[in-house]
Amino acid sequence: MDEKTKPPGSLGRLEELAITLCGIQHATPFRCDRKHVILFAGDHGVAASGVSAYPSAVTAQMVQNFLAGGAAVNVLARLHGATMNVVDVGVAVPIPAHPGLTQAKIAEGTLSFCDGPAMSLKQCEQALSVGRAQVAQSNADVLALGEMGIANTSSASALLAILNRHPSPAELVGRGTGVDDERLAQKRSIVARAAERFATDDPIQALASVGGFEIVGLVGAMLEAAERRIPVLVDGFIVTVAAVAANRIQPNSLEALIFAHLSEEPGHRVALEHLNRKPLLQLGMRLGEASGAVLAFGLVDAAYRILTEMSSFASAGVSQAEQSDHA
Amino acid sequence: MDEKTKPPGSLGRLEELAITLCGIQHATPFRCDRKHVILFAGDHGVAASGVSAYPSAVTAQMVQNFLAGGAAVNVLARLHGATMNVVDVGVAVPIPAHPGLTQAKIAEGTLSFCDGPAMSLKQCEQALSVGRAQVAQSNADVLALGEMGIANTSSASALLAILNRHPSPAELVGRGTGVDDERLAQKRSIVARAAERFATDDPIQALASVGGFEIVGLVGAMLEAAERRIPVLVDGFIVTVAAVAANRIQPNSLEALIFAHLSEEPGHRVALEHLNRKPLLQLGMRLGEASGAVLAFGLVDAAYRILTEMSSFASAGVSQAEQSDHA
Repeated sequence: MDEKTKPPGSLGRLEELAITLCGIQHATPFRCDRKHVILFAGDHGVAASGVSAYPSAVTAQMVQNFLAGGAAVNVLARLHGATMNVVDVGVAVPIPAHPGLTQAKIAEGTLSFCDGPAMSLKQCEQALSVGRAQVAQSNADVLALGEMGIANTSSASALLAILNRHPSPAELVGRGTGVDDERLAQKRSIVARAAERFATDDPIQALASVGGFEIVGLVGAMLEAAERRIPVLVDGFIVTVAAVAANRIQPNSLEALIFAHLSEEPGHRVALEHLNRKPLLQLGMRLGEASGAVLAFGLVDAAYRILTEMSSFASAGVSQAEQSDHA
Repeated sequence: MDEKTKPPGSLGRLEELAITLCGIQHATPFRCDRKHVILFAGDHGVAASGVSAYPSAVTAQMVQNFLAGGAAVNVLARLHGATMNVVDVGVAVPIPAHPGLTQAKIAEGTLSFCDGPAMSLKQCEQALSVGRAQVAQSNADVLALGEMGIANTSSASALLAILNRHPSPAELVGRGTGVDDERLAQKRSIVARAAERFATDDPIQALASVGGFEIVGLVGAMLEAAERRIPVLVDGFIVTVAAVAANRIQPNSLEALIFAHLSEEPGHRVALEHLNRKPLLQLGMRLGEASGAVLAFGLVDAAYRILTEMSSFASAGVSQAEQSDHA
């Protein structure tokens, strides 16, 4: 990178990204022909407690929208030449078969963590396996991971509070896709109670306690990607909390993760600070569904081109920097 | 935008960008087929005072590199399907003819503003005309503007200090492409002296006093783009200081400008705050040559796709948000 016709470091995080991708893949240049998006979808029992601006039915409706190609993530995936598949790990209603859909439903949504654990430990292990299998089959050079699940910012906030032993879990809770004040207060109280009730040092136990299936699927996907040295673009708050869990299960997994964007959700900043990572983009997005991660494919392409197409000082006949003592 | 299958505002600045581009062009959807980069190049008399890590000869060498297609900006322009031309407004040495080069040299570099004004008022008007003509001939839907000129962070810092009446001009001065401590101190002292010597309320006078030709070309280009309602992606510190000057000459011109990225140069933040604008990208870049602006073409494409390809709630059969009082 320092031989390219630019002052060393002057392309900032684009240079870092190129170097990071080479490091993960152990390859120079890194490969990025096969870009792939995996979207894990699941429903949440806690949605019945009025913690989202949208009804639970929207999870399945949005899965249909992803399969039809009309959602934000589809549009951005097409722009960047990425393939995509949607994984039903636990949507509450049946989704008709479709070439872009992987049917891997563990249950018709989690149980509400207001009443007890969201899932059994066995279901949690199943969801981890689903996530791993998706990555193992993907044949991807670079992955973008995302999620869809009405009410899953509540799950993610509770999970982060547990994993982080956060002293004030309510501070991790935001408006998600846009709840009003009344629902925000309800959501905060539900998350705070869950964080207290399910306090544990065991990340698998924490995942099973507050869910959801799609979040556990993400964790499995990250663990598998790290083992296979496949770089993962991490989407917003929920996927980053999955990264916190993956990191707790297997600290090395963090090295394969690239944090794509900073979401508006207040817990996202906390999770990123916990991991000591800085996201690439800060565009005020708060949609989920891998939209921020897929947008960062554009930076991956830019980093690749910089690495492979730029001239060196020598080949272009450009003088390098001089310092005062030689001037 | 609010009809698309996403919570209102959840695509953050990508949505804002789409709306801004439609507003500038007075067209929905906005047009972005013809993306064009204009790179203004010129040399600076002040370079002889050791304010840069690179010798003046690098301006012409980098122009040759741009014409050969090997610089960062070429690579990024190809990635985004943008055309490009380089305008010699005042490079110190002759540049051989090339289809990608516009020969519009006003002088072989500016005079050093350590000794007196960098250029005459007549030359300044000429450089404004060169900039205007480039945009008038471009037939572009969206423009990215950039610059090349060894020592031009010194010119830009002095210009910003004058336009801004900044109480402490030395604070606007950074390491540019990477000067060491000794040169940084020299640069700060030169900029502070120029800001005091050439203090004026007349933006044209300020431009002529500290230059350079490429900065004045940028100002002309922005004035013309605003009149023609062509959106302009503004690159880093130097182009943003040109925007401050354009805004002083014609306040409406600001409405056509989209600030692409935040450079590492300390004066850039000051200039953006002065204009009350927030850049799209923050990637620690400090290269100039339109590299940050061209990278933001990717966000323009994403905004276009979102606007034109995403489904609406009605067409996709997805439920919209409910609020507590209706739940």
